[in-house]
Amino acid sequence: MKSDLDRLMAERGFDALVVIGGAEGNHVLRYLTGGAAITHGTLLKKQGEAPVVLVNAMERDEAAKSGLEVITTAAFNLYDLIQETGSVFEAQLRMLAAFLERYGVNGTVSFYGVEDAGYAFTLLTRLGEMLRDVTVTGEAENTIFDTAYATKDADEIAALEDVAARTNTVMGEMIDFIRQHRVEGGTLVKADGAPLTVGDVKAKLRERLAVYNLADDGHTIFAVGRDGGVPHSRGEAGDALALGKSIVFDLFPRDTQTGYYHDMTRTLCLGYAPPEVQRAYDEVMQSFDAVMDTLEVGKAASFYQELTCDVLEEHGHPTLRSDPTSAEGYVHSLGHGLGLQIHSTPRLSAFSTDTLEVGQVFTVEPGVYYPERGFGVRIEDTVVVDADGSFRSLTPFSKALVIPLKEDA
Amino acid sequence: MKSDLDRLMAERGFDALVVIGGAEGNHVLRYLTGGAAITHGTLLKKQGEAPVVLVNAMERDEAAKSGLEVITTAAFNLYDLIQETGSVFEAQLRMLAAFLERYGVNGTVSFYGVEDAGYAFTLLTRLGEMLRDVTVTGEAENTIFDTAYATKDADEIAALEDVAARTNTVMGEMIDFIRQHRVEGGTLVKADGAPLTVGDVKAKLRERLAVYNLADDGHTIFAVGRDGGVPHSRGEAGDALALGKSIVFDLFPRDTQTGYYHDMTRTLCLGYAPPEVQRAYDEVMQSFDAVMDTLEVGKAASFYQELTCDVLEEHGHPTLRSDPTSAEGYVHSLGHGLGLQIHSTPRLSAFSTDTLEVGQVFTVEPGVYYPERGFGVRIEDTVVVDADGSFRSLTPFSKALVIPLKEDA
Repeated sequence: MKSDLDRLMAERGFDALVVIGGAEGNHVLRYLTGGAAITHGTLLKKQGEAPVVLVNAMERDEAAKSGLEVITTAAFNLYDLIQETGSVFEAQLRMLAAFLERYGVNGTVSFYGVEDAGYAFTLLTRLGEMLRDVTVTGEAENTIFDTAYATKDADEIAALEDVAARTNTVMGEMIDFIRQHRVEGGTLVKADGAPLTVGDVKAKLRERLAVYNLADDGHTIFAVGRDGGVPHSRGEAGDALALGKSIVFDLFPRDTQTGYYHDMTRTLCLGYAPPEVQRAYDEVMQSFDAVMDTLEVGKAASFYQELTCDVLEEHGHPTLRSDPTSAEGYVHSLGHGLGLQIHSTPRLSAFSTDTLEVGQVFTVEPGVYYPERGFGVRIEDTVVVDADGSFRSLTPFSKALVIPLKEDA
Repeated sequence: MKSDLDRLMAERGFDALVVIGGAEGNHVLRYLTGGAAITHGTLLKKQGEAPVVLVNAMERDEAAKSGLEVITTAAFNLYDLIQETGSVFEAQLRMLAAFLERYGVNGTVSFYGVEDAGYAFTLLTRLGEMLRDVTVTGEAENTIFDTAYATKDADEIAALEDVAARTNTVMGEMIDFIRQHRVEGGTLVKADGAPLTVGDVKAKLRERLAVYNLADDGHTIFAVGRDGGVPHSRGEAGDALALGKSIVFDLFPRDTQTGYYHDMTRTLCLGYAPPEVQRAYDEVMQSFDAVMDTLEVGKAASFYQELTCDVLEEHGHPTLRSDPTSAEGYVHSLGHGLGLQIHSTPRLSAFSTDTLEVGQVFTVEPGVYYPERGFGVRIEDTVVVDADGSFRSLTPFSKALVIPLKEDA
């Protein structure tokens, strides 16, 4: 968690961290500023000290909401530098160098944040040439933030609970929306008699997510029948919602303000479930329960992937363990950490070296896929590891497979 | 426009362009792939040749929708490279080098795309060391894409017209929504008698934008009274909508699929306009019309900033020309180009060196601001320069200041 950063910096030999770039997609800037609505800023964190944020004067008040020390570009005469150099880039480069000098930064400085790749390369190469007492570096994998993100403090847990509650509400509203439709000839129809389609459901979903300040960037999976049998298919807009066909509904929006994600999947059958879907669902639920009942702090995350394979193979499902080339059965990992990123540490997968720890938040999402037989089943909750070492689902929404309809034609 | 890229590459001495990174916020990747829904890809464009896209096998079908040549990571044995090196980063680096070698790239290669700054710095530094026949570079300002973006081809104009039409529709729906409310004691109230607030309007706006596949990331300005007098204030959620107070409503969403923006501002007074607001509005409209009536291909963009200052100063408004430190009057530039970015070339500002050209799309947005007197006025259309050299607004929505209400208490 955030309070581990100084220790991690010492372990990695970083005297300072610098985060550059705009706010869009910049999870590191968001992490360190606590989600203050800065559109563009430069953040400096020296080992053992609180971060300082450098922003345009117009963003001063918003930056102050982070509780961090704020300094503005005016302190470095940015506009004079632009006039003097005739170049916004040269002015920004000089300002960055002056910012590091003013705060007495030397030694190894590691850079983060979202930028144009060519801009970042040019800026950091030039900065390294300019500053004699500074070694400019970056981390290309397993970054200090990847490690810090793995466990959450109380503020982060609260933000994750908050987005979880609204995501569960939207799931309920969407199922209510579907149930409001009439059935005609085995298909749901709208007031005008046209079939209710995946596109209609997604249009309604966009509206409901927006009302709750959630954003999915159109990535929600609502996949009917065969598409539900392909783990990454998002569903086809033109598909009609028909009785007895399984639907994989994987909803993983983020809060538009805090940036934290929730991730949940339900498998739904409208009206009734065909026996083979019901059986697969029961077996996936058995593997889900087996995992949830044995989660324990200190255990290897990979153990739960093995356990899931054990349960599903026992019921005759191929898995990536029994057949690494299989396109059917259980063909993915059990889960992943989440927070300001949808996929982070810990990984609940066969080759994971992660261990379950207090403060982690991760998904548990077993599933089986049979595209040729026209269905897939996945059940997913997001789980938090509480301070007492207990595991608590943030996804209390019903896991019922069959959605009863109001009338049958 | 896109067809200028080969000429621009020759002028700048670039033998190839490479775009890396995920799709989020990656306008260069979107520009070159025509908006195919790739989540992560590497794009190579050699001078005089069409681009090639390198994606994960799962994204092959989606990448093919770009119409470009597609090659997958399997062609470079990415998974074997990961096993061999024990590092995803080392594997990606070797794959990138092999990708450039396979397509015979040498000379100067300029990199673009959105990435973590430290990752980009590490990747490009290492790549430069690995490849003897390649000079790795990037552009820190006035990039080749900044120049290409300035003019749009027919496909881009069509996308901009499309998002413009929906944005105008949402503006109309929002005004209808406001007008549906009762007036009590000079304030609009909801069915339950509570005041209609800026927060209520923004909640409705989120819903309507979502229905039309538009996204504003919460950045829309709906600023009442004094807030409307501060050009960048987004409005306070708790403010009630009162009769006779001016509202600056600046709506600039992007299409969630194509990524193209529209940008429009209307100033609204509910029920009636106070005389000083009406006067300021009339004067801003006079400057707007003066600009629109004189737009001409080949003229300096800065001319129109001067013209706007001429008209507004004549009516006694301070401007940044008459007083560079003024916080009142006309305190910003007249307009900016837009496309896949909300701010791009041409700049209609005092120090702009841009010239008006066929194919440009830009805003015209004069305004005056009096925060101490509790109001601001801005009027903004987005304008396209057609092939015959005529200027056409993409923002036909009414510019009426006063919004008549259905009943008065």
